[in-house]
Amino acid sequence: MRGRLHLRTIRKGERPLSEKCGGMLRKKRMTGSMAEYVKVAVDAMGGDNAPGEIVKGAVEAVQAEKNIKVYLVGKQDQVEAELAKYEYPKDQVEVVNATEVIAMAESPVAAIKGKKDSSIVKGLYMVREGKCDAFVSAGSTGAVLVGGQVIVGRAKGVERPPLAPLIPTEKGASLLVDCGANVDAKPSNLVQFARMGSIYMEHVVGIKNPRVGIVNNGAEEEKGNALVKATFPLLKACPDINFIGSVEARDIPSGAADVIVCEAFVGNVILKLYEGVGGTLIRMVKAGMMTSTRSKVGALLIKPALKETLKAFDLEQYGGAPLLGLKGLVVKTHGSSKAIEIRNTILQCLTFREQDINGKIQKAISGSVG
Amino acid sequence: MRGRLHLRTIRKGERPLSEKCGGMLRKKRMTGSMAEYVKVAVDAMGGDNAPGEIVKGAVEAVQAEKNIKVYLVGKQDQVEAELAKYEYPKDQVEVVNATEVIAMAESPVAAIKGKKDSSIVKGLYMVREGKCDAFVSAGSTGAVLVGGQVIVGRAKGVERPPLAPLIPTEKGASLLVDCGANVDAKPSNLVQFARMGSIYMEHVVGIKNPRVGIVNNGAEEEKGNALVKATFPLLKACPDINFIGSVEARDIPSGAADVIVCEAFVGNVILKLYEGVGGTLIRMVKAGMMTSTRSKVGALLIKPALKETLKAFDLEQYGGAPLLGLKGLVVKTHGSSKAIEIRNTILQCLTFREQDINGKIQKAISGSVG
Repeated sequence: MRGRLHLRTIRKGERPLSEKCGGMLRKKRMTGSMAEYVKVAVDAMGGDNAPGEIVKGAVEAVQAEKNIKVYLVGKQDQVEAELAKYEYPKDQVEVVNATEVIAMAESPVAAIKGKKDSSIVKGLYMVREGKCDAFVSAGSTGAVLVGGQVIVGRAKGVERPPLAPLIPTEKGASLLVDCGANVDAKPSNLVQFARMGSIYMEHVVGIKNPRVGIVNNGAEEEKGNALVKATFPLLKACPDINFIGSVEARDIPSGAADVIVCEAFVGNVILKLYEGVGGTLIRMVKAGMMTSTRSKVGALLIKPALKETLKAFDLEQYGGAPLLGLKGLVVKTHGSSKAIEIRNTILQCLTFREQDINGKIQKAISGSVG
Repeated sequence: MRGRLHLRTIRKGERPLSEKCGGMLRKKRMTGSMAEYVKVAVDAMGGDNAPGEIVKGAVEAVQAEKNIKVYLVGKQDQVEAELAKYEYPKDQVEVVNATEVIAMAESPVAAIKGKKDSSIVKGLYMVREGKCDAFVSAGSTGAVLVGGQVIVGRAKGVERPPLAPLIPTEKGASLLVDCGANVDAKPSNLVQFARMGSIYMEHVVGIKNPRVGIVNNGAEEEKGNALVKATFPLLKACPDINFIGSVEARDIPSGAADVIVCEAFVGNVILKLYEGVGGTLIRMVKAGMMTSTRSKVGALLIKPALKETLKAFDLEQYGGAPLLGLKGLVVKTHGSSKAIEIRNTILQCLTFREQDINGKIQKAISGSVG
């Protein structure tokens, strides 16, 4: 199956990290005090299930992988109370006190400016200052996106860092870039999305020479809005991008491309409609099965098989969405994240580091590849 | 259930048409030779199943409704060979010979200009010249959209005629405006879409005071791309539009608004992703049920109930999508239309006429309502 995540192999924690890590990572290790770890700051207060599920996920991550150290950023007493419930290697978890919490409804810009002692601002500063390699949050998407750009900062040459979630398809998963907060992108932004997305799919997800498609309102080259029409020839001219042309929204779920490039407004519509149509259809199928005695019996019999199928189409199983093109790694997970998603996302940070994704992006954007 | 189509009641053919029809319709009747009919030109050559299913659908429509006359436009010998298979009231069907066919892959503008004797061009001219009240086609969407505007023409004051399909939701159906070919709309276009869509939902679908939402990348008022931000206050200021604010794509399938307003590129993504996610999920559910003997038995038991449920979520059952704001009625049905969809779409034309939708749109756009 295409799109099988590397993180499934990471779980075993067997790979010799020292042989695999890239330049940026090695440099960081030599200056850090705990040279052997990939260090991940985790927003212990973010999302619907914080701090309970977040702390549980962090514990499960360090139990699975000895090369990771997690910094749980949040209200110290609450985080420690949760931590006390588990057995885990103590030197792999540290609590960093943050007295404020950014709520979902707050204005992202005002919150990032005003709440200096929030878990999001503090966690992002740990990445900025090189104390951590990555920051993971299930909190306010807007605050993470704004904070990622303002505090961690864009890598040199990156015009706009896109949020790039994996979405399920019949063939595995595709990367949807951009689903971020900055709408009305320019053609050159979209070309960078394609380039950064290709690197992620190739080196984190393991798809060789990933197929890049641009979301369009028709398959023909003359179709498109002004943005797509201007971007199409630019993508076609990139020797380092495996551009397959236009992808109609109809063909996204069947896996028509590995990297789906679009402007953030459209990306948001795609991501949320995926959830919406999927959720509605599943509710309707379940309700439909309850309409007669005959179908109720049938429902009992198909339940295990159906559960397995629907799990493969559950957006949340794909872990967090990275904000690509920053100076450090920032990953946003679903607000409804449970421990398993937090655990997988933390482990994903290891692959990101091992594969030196930031180094590769930097090299590709600065034009030294292609 | 909200969104129950009037056409289900039309089937009985009981309503006294003369009492219900509006000004435009009456005027046309007095000049026409067959004053008692609503006259519908049907593209007999359009779509994957032409002419067989198209002719069958036309026959079923006149069998169901004595106030309709259908003009089957297409290759005379082929259409007559199909017609010969059925018993039907002969005075309600007429064949109009058209020697050319516009293929799906042709450039719409070139085809409309070049193929003067095609079923699409000829059918549209019948509306333009007042010989017919409506034109129905399952052929090239592009050609129908271009031809509708060029041949039939926009109603006075209408800036851009949107294509407005009904999409299924948990509560019934919502109208998605615009899914047409003209992308990159202006704020004033979107306000007209909202107004025309409201009239359609209220008078054709029967939703009193329909809720109008604008597709946005967040529920908050400050969210949106440049187009949405500029359109939001305009919609808010319209006393004749029941504007409920932003609708996230996630909430469209649960029926968050009756009229979903968006620019055509976004509308195309929504419509096609609806199909794509729905189709993929249903294939996966079916495949999932075939994985064990237990689930296979279960599948047999739930089959009838599931079929009924999935039918409610099938885009094709909702008949054709009108191109709103033209001087006459032009309706595009799915390329894969079977007889039932053609029949329902032809009957839909009756409601459109009965309710004088064009007259109401003209009145609303010219500002005499509000």
